[in-house]
Order: sequence, then C-alpha cells, then structure tokens
Amino acid sequence: MFDQYLKKSLLAVLGGGIAMLVMLAVPAAAQAPEPTAVTAQARPGKVKLPPARSLLDQVRRAGVLRVGVVEQIPWTFTDRSGQLAGFEVDVARALASDLGVRLELVRASATGIADDVAAGHADIGAAGLWFSPQRALVVNYTQPYSEATMRLFASRARAAGRTDVAAYRQADVTLGVLKGSPGEAFAPKAFPLARIRTFERYADLADAVETGGIEAGISMSPRPEFLVHVAGDRIFLPVGSAIATRSESFVTPRGDADILAYLESWIRYRNETGWLKSRRDYWFGSFAWADQIDRK
Amino acid sequence: MFDQYLKKSLLAVLGGGIAMLVMLAVPAAAQAPEPTAVTAQARPGKVKLPPARSLLDQVRRAGVLRVGVVEQIPWTFTDRSGQLAGFEVDVARALASDLGVRLELVRASATGIADDVAAGHADIGAAGLWFSPQRALVVNYTQPYSEATMRLFASRARAAGRTDVAAYRQADVTLGVLKGSPGEAFAPKAFPLARIRTFERYADLADAVETGGIEAGISMSPRPEFLVHVAGDRIFLPVGSAIATRSESFVTPRGDADILAYLESWIRYRNETGWLKSRRDYWFGSFAWADQIDRK
Amino acid sequence: MFDQYLKKSLLAVLGGGIAMLVMLAVPAAAQAPEPTAVTAQARPGKVKLPPARSLLDQVRRAGVLRVGVVEQIPWTFTDRSGQLAGFEVDVARALASDLGVRLELVRASATGIADDVAAGHADIGAAGLWFSPQRALVVNYTQPYSEATMRLFASRARAAGRTDVAAYRQADVTLGVLKGSPGEAFAPKAFPLARIRTFERYADLADAVETGGIEAGISMSPRPEFLVHVAGDRIFLPVGSAIATRSESFVTPRGDADILAYLESWIRYRNETGWLKSRRDYWFGSFAWADQIDRK
Repeated sequence: MFDQYLKKSLLAVLGGGIAMLVMLAVPAAAQAPEPTAVTAQARPGKVKLPPARSLLDQVRRAGVLRVGVVEQIPWTFTDRSGQLAGFEVDVARALASDLGVRLELVRASATGIADDVAAGHADIGAAGLWFSPQRALVVNYTQPYSEATMRLFASRARAAGRTDVAAYRQADVTLGVLKGSPGEAFAPKAFPLARIRTFERYADLADAVETGGIEAGISMSPRPEFLVHVAGDRIFLPVGSAIATRSESFVTPRGDADILAYLESWIRYRNETGWLKSRRDYWFGSFAWADQIDRK
Repeated sequence: MFDQYLKKSLLAVLGGGIAMLVMLAVPAAAQAPEPTAVTAQARPGKVKLPPARSLLDQVRRAGVLRVGVVEQIPWTFTDRSGQLAGFEVDVARALASDLGVRLELVRASATGIADDVAAGHADIGAAGLWFSPQRALVVNYTQPYSEATMRLFASRARAAGRTDVAAYRQADVTLGVLKGSPGEAFAPKAFPLARIRTFERYADLADAVETGGIEAGISMSPRPEFLVHVAGDRIFLPVGSAIATRSESFVTPRGDADILAYLESWIRYRNETGWLKSRRDYWFGSFAWADQIDRK
Repeated sequence: MFDQYLKKSLLAVLGGGIAMLVMLAVPAAAQAPEPTAVTAQARPGKVKLPPARSLLDQVRRAGVLRVGVVEQIPWTFTDRSGQLAGFEVDVARALASDLGVRLELVRASATGIADDVAAGHADIGAAGLWFSPQRALVVNYTQPYSEATMRLFASRARAAGRTDVAAYRQADVTLGVLKGSPGEAFAPKAFPLARIRTFERYADLADAVETGGIEAGISMSPRPEFLVHVAGDRIFLPVGSAIATRSESFVTPRGDADILAYLESWIRYRNETGWLKSRRDYWFGSFAWADQIDRK
C-alpha cells in the first residue's frame, strides 16, 4: 500500500495546481450587450497596421512564382521530352495557376533547398520535405500536403508463411536497409531481434530481396511498390500499410505569416476538392508515369 | 517485364534522393546538458522584439470588435424584431464576449467582404467563407470553424427505388442545379451520365423536384433539409451524408500573425467545450429558428 | 404545413447568397503556361523582406532556451535529487536539444506564466496550458501537443451496479468536485440531476469517495487513476474514457509567427516519431515515476 504522506502531498500539489489553472480556464461569463449593426466604413482614428510585406505581394508584382524542387522520382524528374515532371511539379503548377502567375521551377539540392529559400533564391520549397531540426532553424514549415511512407518488402522465396509484420520481428530474419536512409534509423527500433544488413547501393538491396538472399527490406514508397511492379511475384508486401510515415510540407522564408496562411488554406482547399489525393494516387499509387522516364 | 535499365536508373535516383533527404531528418542525437532552473527574470541585454501591433491590441483599445457578415439565412439574417441573428451572429457575439469588448456587426457583400477586411472597414470576416483563389490574394484564412455541405434532394414521385447516390448517376436521371452555384460546377463531374438542368431561380428548382418534374436537385445545406421540412414526403434525401463539403473560416487582414493565432486557438477551445457544435446543430440541424424570419 | 410566403422568401435569400459566394469559390480555370526551369539564383531587383527577428534567432544567439514551467505533478515537479522532472521537463529538454541550445527552466505560476512570456522573462511557456480568454489576450497558443482529460472516479461501496456514466446522472447520486476546478464548472451541466458537493481540499474529496461517503468524484487525470492506484479496489473508474478533454499548447510571445511555425512543425514531427505519445504514456499512463517524489 502506498505511503500515506506521499499520497496526501501528491493530492495537495495536484489539487492546488489544477485549481489555479482552472480559474483561468473558465470563459468570461458576461455576455456582450446586444450588438449594433452598421454598413462597412472605416473606424475613425483607426491605427493603421504596418502594410503587409509578404512574399505574396512580391510574387504578384513579379508575375512569377519560383518554387524550389529537388530531382527525385516521382516527386520531380526530367521526363523524356526534357521537361520537369512529377508530383511536386503538378502541385507547383496548380499553386501558380491559383495565384494567377507564371511558374518558375528552381532546381535545388536536398541539402541546399532550405538555404535557397532563406536566401530568396526560391520563393518556397516543394520537395517532399519533412521536419528536420537542421532545416527548421532557417525556414518555416507549413501544415502537410502529402506524406512519405516507409514499407516492408519481402522475398517470396524466403517468405515461409510470414504474412504480417510480427513475423519479421524474429531473430532468424535478416532485413536490408539503405545506408543513410530512414529505414537504417528505424529498423533497429522496430525490429530489435532481426539482423539488419546495410547496403551502400539501393539496387543491391533490391537484388538481395529479389533473389532471396535476405528475407526482406525496408524503404520509402514508391520503391517497394515499384519492386513488386517490376519483380512480379518474387517480391511481395507482407504488410498492407506503411510501417512509418512522415508528413511532407512546403518550406517558406522566415518572418512571413501570410505565405504560411495562404499555403495552409490552399492545401485545405485542394484536399477538399479531392485534387491533392488524385495527384498522390497518380504519382504514388500507380506507375502510369513510368514510361515518361528518359532512358537516354 | 520492365526494362532493366529503366529499373536500375529509377532505383539509383530514388535511392540517392531519399538518402540525402534522410541525413537531415535524423534528430540531433546529443541531449542537452542537465537544465538549470531559475525563477522568472529578464534576460540581461535581451534584444527586445518589435512591439506586437496586432488587430487584437486595436480591438482592445477601441473596446469594440467589428465583424463583417453577409446576410444569408441561416448564417446571418434580420429577425422579426429587426435584429441581426444567425449562426455567424452567435459566433461573433461569443468572440466579442471572450475578448471583453462590444460587438459591432458590419454588413458586407459576399463579393466585397474580403476587400472590406483588407481595407480595415471590418476587423475580421465571418460569413461562411471557404477558400477562393481570388479572396486568398487579399486576406488570410484561419483554420475552419464550420463547414458547408452539399446534398442531393430527390422527388419521391420519381424515386423509382433509387435510394443511394449511384442510382442518380444514370443516364435516365435529370438533376437540377442553381445557376452559379457549387452544384452547377460539381454535378457534371460527380454525375457525368445524368442530364443537368440549370435553373435561374432556386424556387423553380425546388418546385421542379417537389412536383416530380425532375428526379433530383443539388444544393447546399440547409436548403435540402428545409425542403424536406416544408414539402413533407414529396421530397426526400436519398443520401444520408453530404456529397461534398467545404470548410468555412474567418478571414483576417494580411500581416497579422496574432489575430490568426488567437482565432485558431479560440476555435479549438469552442469546439472542445461543445459550444460550436451546439450552435451548428441549432442553425443547420433544426428549423427551430424559422419563426424568427420577418414575414413583413 | 409551412407558410408558403416564408418558404419562398427563405429560398430566395438562400439561393441568392449561396450563388454570390460561389462565383468566388470556383478555382481559376486558366492553367499557367509550361513552367521554365532554372538553377537557384537571386531574383534581379528583388525587394528584400524585413529581416526575420524571431525569438528563434535570439535563442540561437544566446545559446539557451528559457522555458516557463509551473510546478504541478506530473507536469513539472522537484524529484528526490532536487532536479525538476516531469512531462514538461522532458518536452523542454527535447526541444532545446533539437534547437542545439542549453535548456533553462523558468519557474512561473499558473496565474503569472502568460505575463512572464509576454514580458520576455521566459521565451515560451510549457505548463499543460489550455485556452483561457484571459491568457489569450497576452500570448499566442500553438497547436496542441498534449491534452488534459477529466474523469469520473467512483466508490466501490456505493457502486450498486453503476457501471456507465448514465448511471451517475441520477438524482440519488452525489458527485464530489474540487472548489474552483474544471469539474465544478462541468458537473452541473453534464450531471444535471445529481447532487454536487464542493470540497475545499482535494484530499477530503478523495477520502469521501474512498470511504463511501459519496458515490463519485470528478477530477483531471492522472488524479483519478492515481486514487485507484493507491486505494486498491475501494475506488474504481466506471467510465473507460475521459468525460471531457482540453488540449494543451505552448504559449509564445505576440508578434512572432516564426516561433509558432517552428513549434507546430516540431510537435507534428515528435508526434510522428511516436516520441510525444511515449512520454505521455509514461507520465499519464503509469506511476513508474511516483518514487521520484521527494518525501522529505
């Protein structure tokens, strides 16, 4: 049985603390008097707020939206006609269209895009970016407009009746991950008993699973789905859903609340119309785009 | 079978891109040293941030919150006592009460309310507004506090056993929509096979469905529910839920992060207490208010 | 049957209003021309935005994050080693770690923490704070990172087969609440038939339920769970879930959009990795920490 003194002291602290919090939490009981109604007019002697100096004003003035992108299939890539295409290109084009301006895509690197936006080399970044403590020191993130999903892909030859994630948490399972990938960081925590083998090149990881050298691999969509697509029944997805997800946001320059507010309401709108889902389904739920890849 | 070169090239690009992204995604492993604890005091030589110059400060100074509204039943309308009433009036009154100021309702038009807020003729707008690319160029939108729902309402005489939405996606169905309404834009996409008839006046659309001239109509709540309410069993709702929804937000002036933050935390709070739901249920889930309409 | 004039007038107003709204809701049909692609470079003659002057810059410059906390078990309390510990201390430590700075915990009071943050005595506040109209006049709230839950705890001796919340909404039930607590404000609304008895000290309320003096009590977690933990089978939780919840947010200084954006993306990230849930489970779903309490 618990120490009675401790119990009393805990209760006292808990009681007091909550009570104080709560006085502040009770809404103002008094109702405002019956409202007056007028037609729109300026408030006399109204203190003018500082003029909005948002990126939005610059973009409208310049007539162009410059969106930073990172080449990575299927987010952004050069199609066989030499044009940039992909999920982010569709998103950037729709955004420029709603803003009524021309779109300019700014090629950036995954390690440089945050600095490019902070320095004004691009107005915003759209590159499947999720939160990183480093990037968050130089740019703001919007609410998400998409998400990255991590999946398990397994060798049919080594399946041995394993049809759920628990079956791959065993000591007799070897999981392949790409060096420096989310899977490498995630696998030891989610599969503590399994042996983890790290591959330098993704193609070697894919081959190890396809040829039955190891039981399974972990990587980000759409790569596991793509392997099933190309490897036929030698590779399968033992888990129906993602084993981990990270939301993907636009990044924007610091000190600008308006561009954040614009993008977040735009994302909500393009979700409600079903447009964002339709583009995600096309780029991450199908390979109808695979023949757009330039093979030269 | 897929082209092996394409496969390798895809894998290479996918692998490289993700790997770079991920280095940035791994959280800082190092833990901060044991924190020191002090009692509240100013940081010596602290750089002072620019003073907040938010609308909130102006509103508190003026002692009045000016909320732009658009007359439309049941959002905002003049009741038989000559006072403005409706869902938005309840929302504006609660907001002013929590701010501890008087409420002033500013009559605006659906086409002008964004400019009125941008020009400072009203502090914020509360008029069932959802995202439009045009409005979003001049004001910010908050997170939603309500939503507009589009519904199908059908003629009992022409029902012929149609009891789900699929049954109204047939070539032998005529759907009525109001000219310039969301239904007019939505119907051809959601009901590609059906014949669409556009009506100039909503009363004529309602009569066409009520008298069995056409199978069904599409419009925004609470109009379909109201028709069932007044037309008895001659009109019914074949689909239990909305066929489309758009979230409704406050609009606020550009360049003010604080009013956005205030309204969004206020919305969360008024949702958690159940207050917003109770007002939506009253104004959009009942017609207890119908006798407040001035018939003169 | 409904008044036909009223019907027509309602339909007319409804029809008109919606139609106007909708013209604005239709997205710009025109698609932007084929985008051009360039590598990152500054826009010629680009208007420079005002330099970001966020708290984040100050924190990085000073090398320390000062987080305001309120002592209350298990949010923040002094453990037996004399160090501050608790859910908020874990949150503040992780935040400082991701920012790459030292953590300084600033002791504040529930009634004073908002003013402390507004005055710059602490950079942000982390103290299980939910929206209150008074606090919201001086600081901004972020999106929530946790939630406070209110629960019913009941006397086994007086249970008499009562195993759901409805059974405690009877006239023959007496509910105990702490003076000035959320339960005192909530109980009369949620349990209109029951007798409500207000206690000055939480320990007396706990004893009244434990000894069977009253049927049940209402208070915030983890107190009800703690009572079951210490009172064995003399007290039980008749309702599996919370009877009310309030989301808990950081509070930040006015006029700073960047610190809001940083904290909200940080919260999302720490939720997606499962870290926030694991800390909530530890501090609010277990009493493994109870022996850290200093009994001296």
